[in-house]
Amino acid sequence: MQLKLIVEYEGTAYQGWQLQPGDQTVQAVLERALSTALREPVRVRGAGRTDAGVHACGQVAAVRVSRVPSDLERLQKSLNALTPDDVAVREVTVVDDAFDPRRHATSRRYEYRLWTAATPSPFWRRWAWHHPQRLDVDAMAAAAPALLGEHDCTAFCAADADPTRTMMRRITVSEVGRDGPLVCYRVEANAFLKHMVRNVVGTLVEIGRGERPTDALGMLLRGRDRTKAGATAPPHGLVLVAVRY
Amino acid sequence: MQLKLIVEYEGTAYQGWQLQPGDQTVQAVLERALSTALREPVRVRGAGRTDAGVHACGQVAAVRVSRVPSDLERLQKSLNALTPDDVAVREVTVVDDAFDPRRHATSRRYEYRLWTAATPSPFWRRWAWHHPQRLDVDAMAAAAPALLGEHDCTAFCAADADPTRTMMRRITVSEVGRDGPLVCYRVEANAFLKHMVRNVVGTLVEIGRGERPTDALGMLLRGRDRTKAGATAPPHGLVLVAVRY
Repeated sequence: MQLKLIVEYEGTAYQGWQLQPGDQTVQAVLERALSTALREPVRVRGAGRTDAGVHACGQVAAVRVSRVPSDLERLQKSLNALTPDDVAVREVTVVDDAFDPRRHATSRRYEYRLWTAATPSPFWRRWAWHHPQRLDVDAMAAAAPALLGEHDCTAFCAADADPTRTMMRRITVSEVGRDGPLVCYRVEANAFLKHMVRNVVGTLVEIGRGERPTDALGMLLRGRDRTKAGATAPPHGLVLVAVRY
Repeated sequence: MQLKLIVEYEGTAYQGWQLQPGDQTVQAVLERALSTALREPVRVRGAGRTDAGVHACGQVAAVRVSRVPSDLERLQKSLNALTPDDVAVREVTVVDDAFDPRRHATSRRYEYRLWTAATPSPFWRRWAWHHPQRLDVDAMAAAAPALLGEHDCTAFCAADADPTRTMMRRITVSEVGRDGPLVCYRVEANAFLKHMVRNVVGTLVEIGRGERPTDALGMLLRGRDRTKAGATAPPHGLVLVAVRY
Protein backbone atom coordinates (compact mmCIF):
# COMPACT_ATOMS: atom_id res chain seq x y z
CA MET A 1 0.00 0.00 0.00
CA GLN A 2 0.93 3.63 -0.31
CA LEU A 3 0.48 6.78 1.72
CA LYS A 4 -0.25 10.08 0.02
CA LEU A 5 1.01 13.21 1.79
CA ILE A 6 0.18 16.87 1.25
CA VAL A 7 3.28 18.82 2.19
CA GLU A 8 3.99 22.50 2.91
CA TYR A 9 7.47 23.95 3.10
CA GLU A 10 9.47 27.12 3.14
CA GLY A 11 12.17 26.42 0.57
CA THR A 12 14.68 29.02 1.82
CA ALA A 13 16.98 26.53 3.53
CA TYR A 14 16.70 23.73 0.94
CA GLN A 15 18.42 22.77 -2.29
CA GLY A 16 14.95 22.09 -3.67
CA TRP A 17 12.69 19.07 -3.40
CA GLN A 18 14.78 16.40 -5.08
CA LEU A 19 17.19 14.17 -3.15
CA GLN A 20 20.81 15.08 -3.87
CA PRO A 21 23.86 13.60 -2.17
CA GLY A 22 25.29 15.98 0.41
CA ASP A 23 22.51 18.57 0.05
CA GLN A 24 19.66 19.48 2.35
CA THR A 25 16.47 18.71 0.40
CA VAL A 26 12.80 18.45 1.32
CA GLN A 27 12.62 14.88 0.05
CA ALA A 28 15.53 13.88 2.31
CA VAL A 29 13.88 15.52 5.34
CA LEU A 30 10.60 13.68 4.66
CA GLU A 31 12.32 10.33 4.09
CA ARG A 32 14.18 10.65 7.40
CA ALA A 33 10.98 11.54 9.29
CA LEU A 34 8.95 8.76 7.64
CA SER A 35 11.67 6.13 8.15
CA THR A 36 11.80 7.03 11.84
CA ALA A 37 8.02 7.11 12.32
CA LEU A 38 7.34 3.92 10.31
CA ARG A 39 10.52 2.10 11.39
CA GLU A 40 11.36 1.05 7.84
CA PRO A 41 13.46 2.60 5.09
CA VAL A 42 11.23 4.48 2.61
CA ARG A 43 11.49 6.29 -0.69
CA VAL A 44 9.30 9.41 -1.16
CA ARG A 45 8.17 10.50 -4.65
CA GLY A 46 6.87 14.03 -5.23
CA ALA A 47 4.44 15.49 -7.76
CA GLY A 48 6.87 18.22 -8.76
CA ARG A 49 10.58 18.83 -8.31
CA THR A 50 10.60 22.38 -6.96
CA ASP A 51 13.90 24.23 -7.45
CA ALA A 52 16.22 25.38 -4.67
CA GLY A 53 14.53 28.19 -2.72
CA VAL A 54 11.02 27.53 -4.10
CA HIS A 55 8.22 27.04 -1.54
CA ALA A 56 5.14 24.82 -1.51
CA CYS A 57 1.85 24.76 0.32
CA GLY A 58 0.36 21.92 -1.70
CA GLN A 59 3.15 19.58 -2.78
CA VAL A 60 1.92 15.99 -3.05
CA ALA A 61 4.12 13.02 -2.24
CA ALA A 62 3.64 9.27 -2.14
CA VAL A 63 5.46 6.63 -0.16
CA ARG A 64 5.19 2.83 -0.31
CA VAL A 65 4.85 1.18 3.09
CA SER A 66 4.92 -2.47 4.03
CA ARG A 67 2.02 -1.97 6.44
CA VAL A 68 -0.42 0.96 6.86
CA PRO A 69 -0.31 2.45 10.38
CA SER A 70 -3.68 2.17 12.12
CA ASP A 71 -3.76 5.80 13.30
CA LEU A 72 -2.95 8.15 10.42
CA GLU A 73 -3.63 11.28 12.48
CA ARG A 74 -1.05 10.15 14.99
CA LEU A 75 1.42 9.43 12.19
CA GLN A 76 0.87 12.94 10.83
CA LYS A 77 1.54 14.43 14.27
CA SER A 78 4.73 12.37 14.62
CA LEU A 79 5.91 13.50 11.19
CA ASN A 80 5.34 17.14 12.14
CA ALA A 81 7.27 16.59 15.34
CA LEU A 82 10.12 14.90 13.43
CA THR A 83 10.43 17.42 10.57
CA PRO A 84 11.98 20.87 11.11
CA ASP A 85 9.64 23.89 11.43
CA ASP A 86 10.00 24.81 7.77
CA VAL A 87 8.43 21.53 6.57
CA ALA A 88 4.90 20.44 7.56
CA VAL A 89 2.73 17.50 6.57
CA ARG A 90 -0.83 18.78 6.18
CA GLU A 91 -2.58 15.54 5.30
CA VAL A 92 -1.91 11.79 5.23
CA THR A 93 -4.24 9.41 3.38
CA VAL A 94 -4.05 5.85 2.08
CA VAL A 95 -3.94 5.39 -1.70
CA ASP A 96 -3.54 2.26 -3.81
CA ASP A 97 -0.24 0.96 -5.09
CA ALA A 98 -0.77 2.27 -8.62
CA PHE A 99 -0.88 5.93 -7.52
CA ASP A 100 1.95 7.93 -9.11
CA PRO A 101 2.03 11.50 -7.73
CA ARG A 102 3.88 12.87 -10.77
CA ARG A 103 2.38 11.00 -13.70
CA HIS A 104 -1.20 10.94 -12.44
CA ALA A 105 -1.34 14.67 -11.71
CA THR A 106 -3.73 16.41 -14.11
CA SER A 107 -2.69 19.92 -13.14
CA ARG A 108 -0.32 21.96 -11.01
CA ARG A 109 -0.98 25.48 -9.75
CA TYR A 110 1.80 27.92 -8.91
CA GLU A 111 1.80 31.47 -7.56
CA TYR A 112 4.63 33.96 -7.91
CA ARG A 113 4.73 37.08 -5.73
CA LEU A 114 6.42 40.41 -6.32
CA TRP A 115 6.80 43.02 -3.57
CA THR A 116 6.67 46.32 -5.45
CA ALA A 117 6.96 48.94 -2.65
CA ALA A 118 10.10 51.07 -2.68
CA THR A 119 10.99 49.77 0.80
CA PRO A 120 11.89 46.09 1.22
CA SER A 121 9.48 44.12 3.43
CA PRO A 122 10.84 42.19 6.45
CA PHE A 123 7.59 40.22 6.32
CA TRP A 124 7.54 39.29 2.62
CA ARG A 125 11.30 39.07 2.02
CA ARG A 126 11.32 35.27 2.01
CA TRP A 127 8.15 34.92 -0.09
CA ALA A 128 8.22 37.66 -2.70
CA TRP A 129 10.74 39.09 -5.14
CA HIS A 130 11.37 42.72 -4.21
CA HIS A 131 11.06 44.85 -7.34
CA PRO A 132 11.25 48.49 -6.22
CA GLN A 133 11.21 50.01 -9.72
CA ARG A 134 7.83 51.09 -11.11
CA LEU A 135 5.85 48.33 -12.85
CA ASP A 136 2.87 48.77 -15.16
CA VAL A 137 0.78 46.04 -13.54
CA ASP A 138 -2.14 46.68 -15.91
CA ALA A 139 0.13 45.87 -18.86
CA MET A 140 1.29 42.69 -17.10
CA ALA A 141 -2.33 41.69 -16.38
CA ALA A 142 -3.23 42.31 -20.03
CA ALA A 143 -0.25 40.26 -21.21
CA ALA A 144 -0.66 37.17 -18.99
CA PRO A 145 -3.67 35.48 -20.71
CA ALA A 146 -1.63 35.04 -23.94
CA LEU A 147 -0.25 31.88 -22.32
CA LEU A 148 -3.69 30.22 -22.08
CA GLY A 149 -4.20 27.14 -24.23
CA GLU A 150 -2.02 24.32 -25.50
CA HIS A 151 1.40 25.44 -26.70
CA ASP A 152 4.93 24.36 -27.43
CA CYS A 153 6.60 26.14 -24.49
CA THR A 154 10.22 25.86 -25.69
CA ALA A 155 10.51 29.67 -25.35
CA PHE A 156 10.25 29.37 -21.56
CA CYS A 157 12.21 26.19 -20.86
CA ALA A 158 15.48 26.00 -18.93
CA ALA A 159 18.85 26.13 -20.68
CA ASP A 160 19.55 22.47 -19.88
CA ALA A 161 16.18 21.12 -21.10
CA ASP A 162 16.19 17.78 -22.92
CA PRO A 163 15.23 18.63 -26.55
CA THR A 164 14.00 15.09 -27.26
CA ARG A 165 11.06 15.44 -24.85
CA THR A 166 7.78 17.14 -25.66
CA MET A 167 7.52 20.85 -24.85
CA MET A 168 3.73 20.88 -25.28
CA ARG A 169 1.90 22.15 -22.19
CA ARG A 170 -1.77 23.04 -21.63
CA ILE A 171 -2.14 26.23 -19.57
CA THR A 172 -5.57 26.79 -17.99
CA VAL A 173 -4.94 29.77 -15.69
CA SER A 174 -2.54 32.67 -16.33
CA GLU A 175 -3.43 35.91 -14.55
CA VAL A 176 -1.82 38.81 -12.70
CA GLY A 177 -3.51 40.32 -9.65
CA ARG A 178 -2.56 43.05 -7.20
CA ASP A 179 -3.16 43.51 -3.49
CA GLY A 180 -1.52 46.80 -2.47
CA PRO A 181 2.24 46.56 -3.06
CA LEU A 182 1.97 42.80 -3.59
CA VAL A 183 1.60 41.63 -7.20
CA CYS A 184 0.72 37.97 -7.70
CA TYR A 185 0.97 35.88 -10.86
CA ARG A 186 -1.22 32.74 -10.77
CA VAL A 187 -0.71 29.98 -13.28
CA GLU A 188 -2.09 26.48 -13.69
CA ALA A 189 -1.16 23.90 -16.31
CA ASN A 190 -1.22 20.14 -16.85
CA ALA A 191 2.55 20.27 -16.25
CA PHE A 192 5.41 22.76 -16.38
CA LEU A 193 8.85 22.71 -17.91
CA LYS A 194 11.82 23.33 -15.61
CA HIS A 195 12.09 27.09 -14.77
CA MET A 196 9.02 27.77 -16.90
CA VAL A 197 7.07 29.85 -14.35
CA ARG A 198 10.15 31.86 -13.39
CA ASN A 199 10.96 32.52 -17.07
CA VAL A 200 7.37 33.66 -17.72
CA VAL A 201 7.52 35.95 -14.65
CA GLY A 202 10.86 37.38 -15.79
CA THR A 203 9.23 38.21 -19.13
CA LEU A 204 6.09 39.67 -17.49
CA VAL A 205 8.29 41.94 -15.36
CA GLU A 206 10.06 43.19 -18.48
CA ILE A 207 6.61 43.94 -19.95
CA GLY A 208 5.76 45.79 -16.70
CA ARG A 209 8.94 47.85 -17.02
CA GLY A 210 7.99 48.82 -20.58
CA GLU A 211 10.93 46.94 -22.07
CA ARG A 212 8.75 44.56 -24.07
CA PRO A 213 5.37 44.96 -25.81
CA THR A 214 2.20 43.65 -24.14
CA ASP A 215 1.94 40.82 -26.70
CA ALA A 216 5.50 39.58 -25.97
CA LEU A 217 4.40 36.22 -24.48
CA GLY A 218 2.55 35.16 -27.64
CA MET A 219 5.40 36.23 -29.88
CA LEU A 220 7.89 34.30 -27.76
CA LEU A 221 5.72 31.15 -27.77
CA ARG A 222 5.51 31.28 -31.59
CA GLY A 223 9.27 31.86 -31.88
CA ARG A 224 10.15 28.75 -29.79
CA ASP A 225 13.58 30.17 -28.99
CA ARG A 226 14.55 29.84 -25.35
CA THR A 227 17.27 32.51 -25.60
CA LYS A 228 14.70 35.25 -26.30
CA ALA A 229 12.58 35.15 -23.10
CA GLY A 230 13.09 37.41 -20.07
CA ALA A 231 15.60 36.70 -17.32
CA THR A 232 14.65 33.87 -14.93
CA ALA A 233 12.93 35.41 -11.87
CA PRO A 234 14.48 34.45 -8.50
CA PRO A 235 13.10 31.29 -6.86
CA HIS A 236 11.90 32.72 -3.53
CA GLY A 237 8.80 34.40 -5.04
CA LEU A 238 7.45 31.04 -6.22
CA VAL A 239 5.05 28.70 -4.39
CA LEU A 240 3.63 25.37 -5.58
CA VAL A 241 0.05 25.87 -4.38
CA ALA A 242 -1.82 22.74 -5.43
CA VAL A 243 -1.65 19.55 -7.47
CA ARG A 244 -4.85 18.06 -8.87
CA TYR A 245 -5.58 14.43 -9.85
CA MET B 1 16.49 69.15 14.12
CA GLN B 2 15.13 65.66 14.29
CA LEU B 3 14.28 62.90 11.87
CA LYS B 4 11.22 60.75 12.38
CA LEU B 5 11.42 57.19 11.07
CA ILE B 6 8.71 54.59 10.50
CA VAL B 7 10.32 51.21 11.02
CA GLU B 8 9.31 47.62 10.20
CA TYR B 9 11.04 44.61 11.65
CA GLU B 10 10.82 40.89 12.15
CA GLY B 11 11.68 40.52 15.83
CA THR B 12 12.72 36.84 15.70
CA ALA B 13 16.46 37.51 15.87
CA TYR B 14 16.31 40.43 18.34
CA GLN B 15 16.28 40.88 22.09
CA GLY B 16 13.53 43.45 21.52
CA TRP B 17 13.68 47.10 20.61
CA GLN B 18 15.58 48.57 23.52
CA LEU B 19 19.37 48.95 23.54
CA GLN B 20 21.00 46.43 25.89
CA PRO B 21 24.71 45.86 26.31
CA GLY B 22 25.84 42.70 24.52
CA ASP B 23 22.44 41.99 22.95
CA GLN B 24 21.25 42.28 19.38
CA THR B 25 18.43 44.87 19.47
CA VAL B 26 16.55 46.82 16.80
CA GLN B 27 17.56 50.14 18.36
CA ALA B 28 21.26 49.14 18.13
CA VAL B 29 20.89 48.12 14.48
CA LEU B 30 19.24 51.45 13.61
CA GLU B 31 21.79 53.49 15.54
CA ARG B 32 24.63 51.76 13.70
CA ALA B 33 23.01 52.34 10.30
CA LEU B 34 22.16 55.99 11.06
CA SER B 35 25.63 56.75 12.48
CA THR B 36 27.21 55.34 9.31
CA ALA B 37 24.82 57.11 6.91
CA LEU B 38 24.93 60.47 8.75
CA ARG B 39 28.59 60.25 9.80
CA GLU B 40 27.85 61.26 13.37
CA PRO B 41 27.05 59.32 16.53
CA VAL B 42 23.28 59.23 17.13
CA ARG B 43 20.76 58.08 19.73
CA VAL B 44 17.45 56.65 18.49
CA ARG B 45 14.30 56.85 20.63
CA GLY B 46 11.31 54.62 19.89
CA ALA B 47 7.57 55.02 20.49
CA GLY B 48 7.32 51.64 22.17
CA ARG B 49 9.75 49.15 23.64
CA THR B 50 8.70 45.94 21.95
CA ASP B 51 9.75 42.76 23.79
CA ALA B 52 12.22 40.17 22.52
CA GLY B 53 10.66 38.35 19.54
CA VAL B 54 7.86 40.90 18.97
CA HIS B 55 7.55 42.34 15.43
CA ALA B 56 6.60 45.78 14.14
CA CYS B 57 5.34 47.21 10.89
CA GLY B 58 4.70 50.71 12.26
CA GLN B 59 7.25 51.42 14.99
CA VAL B 60 8.08 55.14 15.17
CA ALA B 61 11.53 56.40 16.10
CA ALA B 62 13.15 59.80 16.37
CA VAL B 63 16.79 60.79 16.08
CA ARG B 64 18.44 64.16 16.65
CA VAL B 65 20.83 65.20 13.89
CA SER B 66 23.26 68.11 13.73
CA ARG B 67 22.25 68.79 10.11
CA VAL B 68 19.33 67.50 8.04
CA PRO B 69 20.48 65.60 4.91
CA SER B 70 19.22 67.29 1.73
CA ASP B 71 17.96 64.07 0.13
CA LEU B 72 15.80 62.11 2.58
CA GLU B 73 14.83 59.50 0.02
CA ARG B 74 18.49 58.74 -0.56
CA LEU B 75 19.09 58.55 3.20
CA GLN B 76 16.21 56.06 3.47
CA LYS B 77 17.71 53.90 0.72
CA SER B 78 21.13 54.00 2.42
CA LEU B 79 19.55 52.96 5.72
CA ASN B 80 17.80 50.02 4.06
CA ALA B 81 21.10 48.99 2.47
CA LEU B 82 22.89 49.28 5.85
CA THR B 83 20.32 47.43 8.01
CA PRO B 84 19.90 43.64 7.81
CA ASP B 85 16.94 42.24 5.83
CA ASP B 86 14.80 41.86 8.94
CA VAL B 87 14.75 45.62 9.64
CA ALA B 88 13.43 48.17 7.13
CA VAL B 89 12.93 51.93 7.29
CA ARG B 90 9.64 52.71 5.57
CA GLU B 91 9.62 56.49 5.88
CA VAL B 92 11.96 59.33 6.89
CA THR B 93 10.61 62.82 7.58
CA VAL B 94 11.87 65.95 9.34
CA VAL B 95 10.18 66.90 12.64
CA ASP B 96 10.94 69.66 15.09
CA ASP B 97 13.18 69.28 18.11
CA ALA B 98 10.30 69.01 20.57
CA PHE B 99 8.93 65.77 19.03
CA ASP B 100 9.00 62.91 21.50
CA PRO B 101 7.98 59.62 19.84
CA ARG B 102 6.96 58.00 23.12
CA ARG B 103 5.33 60.82 25.08
CA HIS B 104 3.57 62.49 22.15
CA ALA B 105 1.98 59.29 20.88
CA THR B 106 -1.80 59.42 21.36
CA SER B 107 -2.37 55.76 20.52
CA ARG B 108 -0.68 52.48 19.67
CA ARG B 109 -2.24 49.65 17.70
CA TYR B 110 -1.14 46.03 18.06
CA GLU B 111 -2.24 42.83 16.38
CA TYR B 112 -1.78 39.32 17.77
CA ARG B 113 -2.13 36.30 15.49
CA LEU B 114 -2.99 32.71 16.35
CA TRP B 115 -2.60 29.87 13.86
CA THR B 116 -5.37 27.44 14.82
CA ALA B 117 -5.03 24.66 12.23
CA ALA B 118 -3.97 21.23 13.54
CA THR B 119 -0.87 21.34 11.33
CA PRO B 120 1.82 23.93 12.03
CA SER B 121 2.34 26.46 9.23
CA PRO B 122 5.83 26.91 7.72
CA PHE B 123 4.55 30.26 6.42
CA TRP B 124 3.04 31.67 9.67
CA ARG B 125 5.41 30.01 12.16
CA ARG B 126 7.36 33.25 12.77
CA TRP B 127 4.25 35.48 12.92
CA ALA B 128 1.55 33.54 14.70
CA TRP B 129 1.25 31.44 17.84
CA HIS B 130 0.34 27.89 16.83
CA HIS B 131 -2.61 26.75 18.94
CA PRO B 132 -3.75 23.39 17.53
CA GLN B 133 -6.38 22.67 20.20
CA ARG B 134 -9.95 23.71 19.40
CA LEU B 135 -10.82 27.33 20.27
CA ASP B 136 -14.29 28.84 20.57
CA VAL B 137 -13.47 31.95 18.54
CA ASP B 138 -17.04 33.28 18.89
CA ALA B 139 -16.62 33.28 22.69
CA MET B 140 -13.31 35.10 22.32
CA ALA B 141 -14.90 37.67 19.99
CA ALA B 142 -17.74 38.19 22.46
CA ALA B 143 -15.27 38.58 25.35
CA ALA B 144 -12.83 41.04 23.76
CA PRO B 145 -14.91 44.28 23.88
CA ALA B 146 -14.99 44.14 27.72
CA LEU B 147 -11.59 45.85 27.59
CA LEU B 148 -12.99 48.97 25.86
CA GLY B 149 -12.91 52.19 27.89
CA GLU B 150 -10.64 53.67 30.54
CA HIS B 151 -9.48 51.16 33.14
CA ASP B 152 -6.93 50.41 35.78
CA CYS B 153 -5.14 47.58 33.92
CA THR B 154 -3.15 46.16 36.87
CA ALA B 155 -4.71 42.75 36.14
CA PHE B 156 -2.76 42.53 32.86
CA CYS B 157 0.57 44.12 33.83
CA ALA B 158 3.92 42.30 33.93
CA ALA B 159 5.24 40.75 37.15
CA ASP B 160 8.00 43.35 37.41
CA ALA B 161 5.75 46.42 36.88
CA ASP B 162 6.51 49.54 38.93
CA PRO B 163 3.51 49.88 41.33
CA THR B 164 4.10 53.62 41.83
CA ARG B 165 3.16 54.43 38.22
CA THR B 166 -0.36 54.78 36.90
CA MET B 167 -1.99 51.65 35.53
CA MET B 168 -4.83 53.63 33.91
CA ARG B 169 -5.11 52.99 30.16
CA ARG B 170 -7.78 54.01 27.63
CA ILE B 171 -8.58 51.18 25.21
CA THR B 172 -10.37 52.20 22.00
CA VAL B 173 -10.24 48.97 19.92
CA SER B 174 -10.43 45.40 21.26
CA GLU B 175 -11.73 42.83 18.79
CA VAL B 176 -11.16 39.27 17.64
CA GLY B 177 -11.46 38.37 13.94
CA ARG B 178 -10.91 35.19 11.96
CA ASP B 179 -9.63 34.50 8.48
CA GLY B 180 -9.61 30.73 7.95
CA PRO B 181 -7.24 29.12 10.47
CA LEU B 182 -5.79 32.53 11.36
CA VAL B 183 -7.35 34.26 14.38
CA CYS B 184 -6.36 37.88 14.91
CA TYR B 185 -6.78 40.04 18.03
CA ARG B 186 -6.64 43.79 17.28
CA VAL B 187 -6.20 46.26 20.11
CA GLU B 188 -5.59 50.00 20.27
CA ALA B 189 -5.02 52.12 23.38
CA ASN B 190 -3.43 55.41 24.35
CA ALA B 191 -0.62 53.30 25.81
CA PHE B 192 0.02 49.76 27.03
CA LEU B 193 1.60 48.28 30.14
CA LYS B 194 4.52 45.90 29.67
CA HIS B 195 3.24 42.44 28.51
CA MET B 196 -0.34 43.76 28.58
CA VAL B 197 -1.40 42.59 25.09
CA ARG B 198 0.19 39.18 25.59
CA ASN B 199 -1.51 38.78 28.97
CA VAL B 200 -4.89 39.75 27.47
CA VAL B 201 -4.34 37.25 24.61
CA GLY B 202 -3.38 34.52 27.09
CA THR B 203 -6.67 35.18 28.90
CA LEU B 204 -8.70 35.27 25.65
CA VAL B 205 -7.23 31.90 24.66
CA GLU B 206 -8.30 30.43 28.02
CA ILE B 207 -11.81 31.77 27.30
CA GLY B 208 -11.62 30.15 23.85
CA ARG B 209 -10.66 26.84 25.45
CA GLY B 210 -13.67 27.07 27.78
CA GLU B 211 -11.48 27.39 30.87
CA ARG B 212 -12.82 30.85 31.78
CA PRO B 213 -16.24 32.50 31.39
CA THR B 214 -16.86 34.95 28.53
CA ASP B 215 -16.93 37.90 30.97
CA ALA B 216 -13.50 37.03 32.44
CA LEU B 217 -11.75 40.18 31.15
CA GLY B 218 -14.13 42.54 32.99
CA MET B 219 -13.91 40.52 36.20
CA LEU B 220 -10.11 40.54 36.03
CA LEU B 221 -10.01 44.31 35.39
CA ARG B 222 -12.20 44.94 38.45
CA GLY B 223 -10.09 42.59 40.59
CA ARG B 224 -6.82 44.42 39.78
CA ASP B 225 -4.77 41.34 40.70
CA ARG B 226 -2.01 40.53 38.21
CA THR B 227 -1.67 36.95 39.45
CA LYS B 228 -5.20 36.05 38.23
CA ALA B 229 -4.92 36.70 34.46
CA GLY B 230 -4.11 34.04 31.85
CA ALA B 231 -0.59 32.93 30.96
CA THR B 232 1.44 35.42 28.91
CA ALA B 233 1.09 34.51 25.23
CA PRO B 234 4.40 33.98 23.38
CA PRO B 235 5.93 37.10 21.77
CA HIS B 236 6.15 35.98 18.14
CA GLY B 237 2.38 36.37 17.49
CA LEU B 238 2.53 40.10 18.31
CA VAL B 239 3.05 43.01 15.88
CA LEU B 240 3.15 46.74 16.66
CA VAL B 241 1.09 47.93 13.71
CA ALA B 242 0.84 51.71 14.10
CA VAL B 243 1.52 54.64 16.41
CA ARG B 244 -0.64 57.75 16.12
CA TYR B 245 0.20 61.35 17.13
